[in-house]
Amino acid sequence: MKIALAQINTTVGDLAGNTKKIINQIERAKKQGADLVVFPELAITGYPPKDLLLKKSFVLENQKRLLTIQKATSGIGVIVGYVNHYLEKRLAPFGYDIAIPPQFPNLTLTNAACLLDNQKIIGIYEKIWLPTYDVFDEKRYFEPGKEPKVFSFQNRKIGINICEDLWVSDGPITQQVKMGANLIIVISASPFFVGKWRMRKELVKKQAVVNRVPILYNNLVCGQDDLIFDGGSFGFDQQGNLIGLAKHFEEDLIIIDIDSPKLEKDVWESEEFEVFNALVLGLRDYVNKNGFSKVVLGLSGGIDSALVCALAVEALGKERVLGVTMPSPFTSETSIQDAQTLARNLEIELLNIPITEVYNSYLKTLAFTFKDTKPDVTEENIQARVRGNLLMALSNKFGYLVLSTGNKSELAVGYTTLYGDMAGGLAVISDVPKTLVYRLARYFNQKSGKEIIPPNIFIKPPSAELKPNQKDSDDLPPYEILDEILALYIEENKSREEICALGFPKDLVTAIIQRVDHNEYKRQQAPLGLKITPKAFGFGRRMPITNKFN
Amino acid sequence: MKIALAQINTTVGDLAGNTKKIINQIERAKKQGADLVVFPELAITGYPPKDLLLKKSFVLENQKRLLTIQKATSGIGVIVGYVNHYLEKRLAPFGYDIAIPPQFPNLTLTNAACLLDNQKIIGIYEKIWLPTYDVFDEKRYFEPGKEPKVFSFQNRKIGINICEDLWVSDGPITQQVKMGANLIIVISASPFFVGKWRMRKELVKKQAVVNRVPILYNNLVCGQDDLIFDGGSFGFDQQGNLIGLAKHFEEDLIIIDIDSPKLEKDVWESEEFEVFNALVLGLRDYVNKNGFSKVVLGLSGGIDSALVCALAVEALGKERVLGVTMPSPFTSETSIQDAQTLARNLEIELLNIPITEVYNSYLKTLAFTFKDTKPDVTEENIQARVRGNLLMALSNKFGYLVLSTGNKSELAVGYTTLYGDMAGGLAVISDVPKTLVYRLARYFNQKSGKEIIPPNIFIKPPSAELKPNQKDSDDLPPYEILDEILALYIEENKSREEICALGFPKDLVTAIIQRVDHNEYKRQQAPLGLKITPKAFGFGRRMPITNKFN
Repeated sequence: MKIALAQINTTVGDLAGNTKKIINQIERAKKQGADLVVFPELAITGYPPKDLLLKKSFVLENQKRLLTIQKATSGIGVIVGYVNHYLEKRLAPFGYDIAIPPQFPNLTLTNAACLLDNQKIIGIYEKIWLPTYDVFDEKRYFEPGKEPKVFSFQNRKIGINICEDLWVSDGPITQQVKMGANLIIVISASPFFVGKWRMRKELVKKQAVVNRVPILYNNLVCGQDDLIFDGGSFGFDQQGNLIGLAKHFEEDLIIIDIDSPKLEKDVWESEEFEVFNALVLGLRDYVNKNGFSKVVLGLSGGIDSALVCALAVEALGKERVLGVTMPSPFTSETSIQDAQTLARNLEIELLNIPITEVYNSYLKTLAFTFKDTKPDVTEENIQARVRGNLLMALSNKFGYLVLSTGNKSELAVGYTTLYGDMAGGLAVISDVPKTLVYRLARYFNQKSGKEIIPPNIFIKPPSAELKPNQKDSDDLPPYEILDEILALYIEENKSREEICALGFPKDLVTAIIQRVDHNEYKRQQAPLGLKITPKAFGFGRRMPITNKFN
Repeated sequence: MKIALAQINTTVGDLAGNTKKIINQIERAKKQGADLVVFPELAITGYPPKDLLLKKSFVLENQKRLLTIQKATSGIGVIVGYVNHYLEKRLAPFGYDIAIPPQFPNLTLTNAACLLDNQKIIGIYEKIWLPTYDVFDEKRYFEPGKEPKVFSFQNRKIGINICEDLWVSDGPITQQVKMGANLIIVISASPFFVGKWRMRKELVKKQAVVNRVPILYNNLVCGQDDLIFDGGSFGFDQQGNLIGLAKHFEEDLIIIDIDSPKLEKDVWESEEFEVFNALVLGLRDYVNKNGFSKVVLGLSGGIDSALVCALAVEALGKERVLGVTMPSPFTSETSIQDAQTLARNLEIELLNIPITEVYNSYLKTLAFTFKDTKPDVTEENIQARVRGNLLMALSNKFGYLVLSTGNKSELAVGYTTLYGDMAGGLAVISDVPKTLVYRLARYFNQKSGKEIIPPNIFIKPPSAELKPNQKDSDDLPPYEILDEILALYIEENKSREEICALGFPKDLVTAIIQRVDHNEYKRQQAPLGLKITPKAFGFGRRMPITNKFN
């Protein structure tokens, strides 16, 4: 039996477009002789649909699309993810007899997979394990499925799992094998973070060997707001041999003959490869799916904006990227030169819009109000905000998307200006720690075979250039140390005591933690940032702003 | 038996401060002869603690505070909300054997109430119904309690409920009464929206009568970020008579003699009273708990900023509010006069910082880049952003909190400038529709017994004054109609077809819905806004930005 894994790029809410794509892939799989073609989790709706799931019209239209797909399955089997619904209402709390409950959906929903064959519905599997941690909110919308099921299809007994189901030991797979399943198919929308793909493969391999069953794993591939789904679908036989491998970070359709599979070689490139390509995918999909013709970003001559610019050119092509230098009296000559060299190397258009006159007009306007004060961070922030305003003016006038260029390290400790360098529609590297920014920039130059990002940008000490002779190291510890402490605090959720026990000085750890906590209010107004670590700032980290802990 | 309902104002994360407050109230209740004193849901941690619950140190310290409280209960009974924990880990997915799971707490948690008496623990009740809709995320953190319980205390059998438990028909109350309970005590942290207090009372009354049992309901009173907890605790006897009523929107300690209760008169003021006082509480607590000495806001001469200014003076006193007029060439003389009159009437300090020079310097700086273009919304946004920058400069220089003054109607349709009038630390009326803004302003004048908000502000047509002769009605339908359609779409979650079926023109409804959907990206960068309707923009409304549904 030949099984096609259709690793497609869906868009949330695009029920018509996703359905069309599914039907195209069914036709393609038929032509390639597949008996069964498998699509990702919630392929009809896109993932994650979030509060669209509370709209009855959305759920009903998704169901209609399933019928359209059903009609397209003559002579082939299909497994497709969608939202199943029941007409009886979810158990509504008592009090809501009194007032209409707008926050309750008027249908009971499950996260489901439909197995179709030759225009007939063979069975429906409903996700049992609903993740409700980090970026996931599935218990907000779905009721859990009640039972693992096994479906007969041609010469096989198939157990379907949906994403999180797979991650449970002694979970649905084990039960399905006990019920006679001799093939497990997992449909998934598993968001990327660095190393996750290897984790998934290790996990599936382990499940296959432990349960003595082949497992085919199909993952979504797309960018959806902050999340990146990295594809890289695969299969393992019951001995734990890799028997199929789809492309990473792009659409693909692979066919696995489950009765006589070919062994595949596992490939592993590098963390830099993973993160770079994930960011390219996330950036490209955000820009294209939201209909922007072009992106614009400020080029300071520093490493962060250089990397974001390189990512944008990689994602969109040089014609769709506009760089802007916005020098002030504190901008060094070398910064301007480095930005110009970078733009020349990337072959993008570069505007030069000096901010000195606008900056001075602010100082003059505020002179009376500030008459008894000394210059401080206020004047630095004004410069950053003038730049933010200028980029937004370009955005408003020409319809370009502003990319913000701040990294995770500075966002963590608030070394960043709200409405200034934080302004933009997408924060491309806001989950990338500064030390990884350097590694990605080096990776880009290596992969390009030349020094597109000028060597001087790597060498010079990082500076915001918002006052004379300013350096990041005036205010922050070395990034190597900062990034280690931040990873322990944010990604591994360790306490101050636990971090100090690893040998970091108590005063330093305390100061960093205080800065992270204090700057929560800024981050909650930050643009969407692409998630590439297990814990990004954003939807998956839900901290109170008013917070007196510690 | 005399039962005290201690309606206290807690702060999230302030374990020491909340504990101290609890112990003070225990002492006070003892002095007043109470046998039992009741505190709100999660009184030790504050509500909602959000991802602080993923910190083991937070959970363990909360447990230590319970022991401190236990020691303070000599000669009295106490019911207090806290986080209970179990040392065994939450069931961890299989795959996480491979990588450390930062997103999983390392303890199993429940949302619990401890009944203490004379320094002994009598019993622990764990919340069974965990809300996971709108602003609630309780299944993200807690395991549900397994059983309703009944505890003996003096001459009574007490069933404890925690918040959502109460709202379930045939839920814990019914079971507890079957188990012999003759008194129900509900501890709660029930966020305000207009009309919710009446809903709660109706509900408790109904539960009391249906289950033939007296119910005492203690609610939290505080502002916590976007949420307002409005207090107004009460009791009903088993005939549905009101037997206790605490203050609305402030701390209180009331004592109910459950064996011979006094009947209370129900009071109901008005929606305006509710919303006005809720906003005052939310504003005051946000400012004070985050340690700001003063707030600053732009006064345009319009109704929105006038209302926010009045609310700020009510919440903080006139000395802690700074108004700023920032006229441009498009600002009318009457606008400046109206703002000055308002400031004079409220007796607040008023700065005048004209933006014309800064605005012109932007135009000059962008003249070359914009040379072949016509003026459009870009130039309007520049003005709004100059004002945002000036307010932020005052914030940075003097440490004041910027209040943004946009209302829900304009935020919904994007009639607002990101980083401009949306800039600030707290969006005081971002959940208040424009028509309600007028009603609240009128209420404020009535309650003040004079026209503090000048009559002209009510009369003149709303205008952003960002270009000559601009009026809101150039771009928007009349607010009476807009607000009706917005309420149907956002608060009642109705589809376009359902709204049209109520008689609104299809083109208008379509255009408004498109504007609401399209402006999601702006709202996700908005400051925290105080929630006063069943569905505010913010944490309780989770929409994708990349969204092709329609």
